[in-house]
Amino acid sequence: MVSASRLTPIREALERYLRRLNSILRPPEAEEVSVLESLGRVLAEDVVAPADLPPFDRAVMDGYAVRAEDTFGARPDRPVRLKLVGRCLAGQEERPAIGAGECAEVATGAMMPEGADAVVRAEHAKRLGDTVEIYTPVPPGSSVDKAGRDVRAGDVVLRRGRLLRVPDVALLLALGIQAVRVFKRPRVGVLSVGDELVDPLGPEKPGRVRDVDRPMVMLALRELGAEPVDLGIAPDDVSAIRETIAEGLETCDALITTGGISVGPADLVAGAIQGLEGAEVVVHRVAMRPGRPVALCLVRGRPVICLPGPPAACYLAFLMFARPVLLRLMGVEPGLVPVWPTARAVLARRVPSRVGITDLVRARLTLRPDGRLVAEPVALRGAGMLSTLTGASGVVIVPEELDVVEEGSEVEVLLFSCPGLAEREERSVVSHEEAG
Amino acid sequence: MVSASRLTPIREALERYLRRLNSILRPPEAEEVSVLESLGRVLAEDVVAPADLPPFDRAVMDGYAVRAEDTFGARPDRPVRLKLVGRCLAGQEERPAIGAGECAEVATGAMMPEGADAVVRAEHAKRLGDTVEIYTPVPPGSSVDKAGRDVRAGDVVLRRGRLLRVPDVALLLALGIQAVRVFKRPRVGVLSVGDELVDPLGPEKPGRVRDVDRPMVMLALRELGAEPVDLGIAPDDVSAIRETIAEGLETCDALITTGGISVGPADLVAGAIQGLEGAEVVVHRVAMRPGRPVALCLVRGRPVICLPGPPAACYLAFLMFARPVLLRLMGVEPGLVPVWPTARAVLARRVPSRVGITDLVRARLTLRPDGRLVAEPVALRGAGMLSTLTGASGVVIVPEELDVVEEGSEVEVLLFSCPGLAEREERSVVSHEEAG
Repeated sequence: MVSASRLTPIREALERYLRRLNSILRPPEAEEVSVLESLGRVLAEDVVAPADLPPFDRAVMDGYAVRAEDTFGARPDRPVRLKLVGRCLAGQEERPAIGAGECAEVATGAMMPEGADAVVRAEHAKRLGDTVEIYTPVPPGSSVDKAGRDVRAGDVVLRRGRLLRVPDVALLLALGIQAVRVFKRPRVGVLSVGDELVDPLGPEKPGRVRDVDRPMVMLALRELGAEPVDLGIAPDDVSAIRETIAEGLETCDALITTGGISVGPADLVAGAIQGLEGAEVVVHRVAMRPGRPVALCLVRGRPVICLPGPPAACYLAFLMFARPVLLRLMGVEPGLVPVWPTARAVLARRVPSRVGITDLVRARLTLRPDGRLVAEPVALRGAGMLSTLTGASGVVIVPEELDVVEEGSEVEVLLFSCPGLAEREERSVVSHEEAG
Repeated sequence: MVSASRLTPIREALERYLRRLNSILRPPEAEEVSVLESLGRVLAEDVVAPADLPPFDRAVMDGYAVRAEDTFGARPDRPVRLKLVGRCLAGQEERPAIGAGECAEVATGAMMPEGADAVVRAEHAKRLGDTVEIYTPVPPGSSVDKAGRDVRAGDVVLRRGRLLRVPDVALLLALGIQAVRVFKRPRVGVLSVGDELVDPLGPEKPGRVRDVDRPMVMLALRELGAEPVDLGIAPDDVSAIRETIAEGLETCDALITTGGISVGPADLVAGAIQGLEGAEVVVHRVAMRPGRPVALCLVRGRPVICLPGPPAACYLAFLMFARPVLLRLMGVEPGLVPVWPTARAVLARRVPSRVGITDLVRARLTLRPDGRLVAEPVALRGAGMLSTLTGASGVVIVPEELDVVEEGSEVEVLLFSCPGLAEREERSVVSHEEAG
């Protein structure tokens, strides 16, 4: 049996590797992209607001622009009467001025007239020829978006290292910014190892196994925002593997291998890496099940991450180790995006575990009517079984110090993805609120 | 003041609209795509496994394939001796047979020889010429992946209506499936309304406001998996709006408008829709802040969703109403993806609210060292303020029956996106485990 004492605990493994990477990695190169193409990219520079937002005082209601003090004391039975001196439409360039006792008609979105500091809504006033009767007092600033209220010129609105989301792009557009400098997507080579493997889209061959790890990892890379590079399938041969890795590193920023690692003597990939000049195996074998054979390496200053071959183990090891490393390579500011996208859930069924190993228990997640996430274990074993992944939405992370987690315990769950976060227990939208 | 009694509660609004849609919408059209292009698409048919997975009994360790019963009683000091009759390499087509008292060398991934039902790992055996000494007994099935263990031929592995994730695509590839039928992406027209609006990528104009809602909604649509269609900016003119909507519906499956709706008399878009033949305003104004003016309509059997113009309100109303409707239009099976992607969080600060209105309180989310999500309110007001969205990762949903939520309460949070789920309180990967 394999001794657990030689395995590195998962947090220690990742921390050691990231620390080592931080000491040698330089910031990625930057490139300029159109703001419309920047969603999901990572800012390579702080973005400073070039102007106030909104750029001018703006009416946010239809009504009458006034000097607020003129409306004080107004009552429905004793309205204040103001002289109508102009009209401000949305999009209009000219800007009238109002003085004491005067007002101007304004439309939502229009620039406020000079001298006005509030809007009386149309339904609280009445126009009588050149005069407007005001029935309610308004405080200064009422129904007005002041210039710079949202953002002030010179403010840093988004920081370097930010993974841009939809509202971020909207803010850039609102500020009139048309292009931003973002980090280039890291090029990540993906290599599968195994004599038995054939391309999954090629013809079937008896005795052969379709290589799903490589396309799976490539899709996961693309989803994350990296650029996958297909390095194909290498045979179970140390020199062939070594050569492919060396070649891959000439054009890629990082490499991911799948298969060809093992806790037994068949540890071909680690052997291949150790034989390369400037290679360093920072972590070799982790206290995690499935996924134990993981190796986290550096070759000529570039990350080489070796994932196990069985597809379920490969995917989970990708989420646990490759994803956090890739976020760093993408230039994402640490802390801005969780290293492991986890949520808290209630465990639906008792799970035995093994002390000294972090068990990743595949689980179906459902949202209970009370809003709690429930994790129902579907599989612990079966490192190769893809159906256990498609039947799950995440894995319960059972800490290495536990030999069992009882039903009803609160546990940490690593989520596979956001859209599949959880199934609702009830099919109705109205779920609990109507039911309760 | 606007009376709250005329506003529809949010769950009732969405439920009423979805129920109405379900009664008239037909399933989307399907198209065939390569499996490698199917990530994020929605299955239009059940997928049945064409063959067992794995397709044959497979060794998962290097060692010796045996008949398990032959190894019973084996001990290091009294090994069982078996005759070596063959060798099975990974990827090898020929398949030897073993009989009683015989074994064959096997490599990880190789097809098991006929007659063998277990693998003795290499480190528990020793080869001596034509004989292999076995030092440990193995039960039947040990270190063997049985044919069909993962999936059996004829099983439905993925159901119609499933939004395909990375492991789903991997399973399809593993089964040798090269193309799948998925629902066509819905074409969704996006129209902004307002005399003051100019294209954000065009030249600046005094008194004008950059239209960020339209590109923002288009990006959010694309992120979700729909196909946005740019219908441009319409002026504050009922007939112009009506014409653009009518034209858009000739080529689009649904429409989203932004701006031009209001709780006041300036409700241009609702007016435009009401004047169209076959138009039905199912919900008009919801008890939500920001986002109250939302209108949920049908025109000639197609959804037309009217979002408010202020960008923060627009984005939140998109998440609350447009996203769930779009998931239906995409053909996603109800219940498979949460209508509202929410999580539970602890409220960091007391929030006053208004009875009768669901307040959406923009909040920064952080993961506490104990793994709990904490929601720190950053803004309730400012429907137009984009900086309140970029400074937040979600909104606390304050139910309409509450007039206050106390600090420390557990609340429901609508998440903006998964990557931005939460910031860690500590910057170190090792966070709490090492600290504690």
